[in-house]
Amino acid sequence: MISEIADIDITAGSEEAFEAAVTKALPLFAAARGCLGLDLQRGIERDNRYTLIVRWETLEDHTVHFRNSPAFTQWRGLVGAYFAGTPKLQHVRRVVTSGEA
Amino acid sequence: MISEIADIDITAGSEEAFEAAVTKALPLFAAARGCLGLDLQRGIERDNRYTLIVRWETLEDHTVHFRNSPAFTQWRGLVGAYFAGTPKLQHVRRVVTSGEA
Repeated sequence: MISEIADIDITAGSEEAFEAAVTKALPLFAAARGCLGLDLQRGIERDNRYTLIVRWETLEDHTVHFRNSPAFTQWRGLVGAYFAGTPKLQHVRRVVTSGEA
Repeated sequence: MISEIADIDITAGSEEAFEAAVTKALPLFAAARGCLGLDLQRGIERDNRYTLIVRWETLEDHTVHFRNSPAFTQWRGLVGAYFAGTPKLQHVRRVVTSGEA
């Protein structure tokens, strides 16, 4: 398993609409090859800053299969209008863990 | 529950030592008031970039109780020497979730 971590700044005032759009997009991820789940985390210090964490079986499930699928276009169609800039994205793999998820 | 998300750049070449130090520090977090668990995630695009996610019952469990405890000094004593710069830290709360953790 790897995770995609995206820092996403949202236009101030559209936070609720953005969260609703992510919720609406959940079936796209649930149906995507190798997608294991996601968390949308909202900033406490800056409440229009979000961190989206999507868990994938492999890097390619995100970077190749999802990005080249119609689901990616639908995802961006749902949420892209709320982005205040280009999301900053990285992929990570878990190397140490403890406690509850 | 809230999470602390820290982006930590590590001096290249000391990644294994840093990961071992985080593992050694796990009992400090396990014993900390309100600490629910943590994940250390290693960058795929940049392998000396880490994302540390620590889950706490409340914001104050991290910002007040942990930071003012001897455990924080011990934690920094274990890992601080490997930092290539000041970690970039934010706190978040989960607003949407699906699938596996």
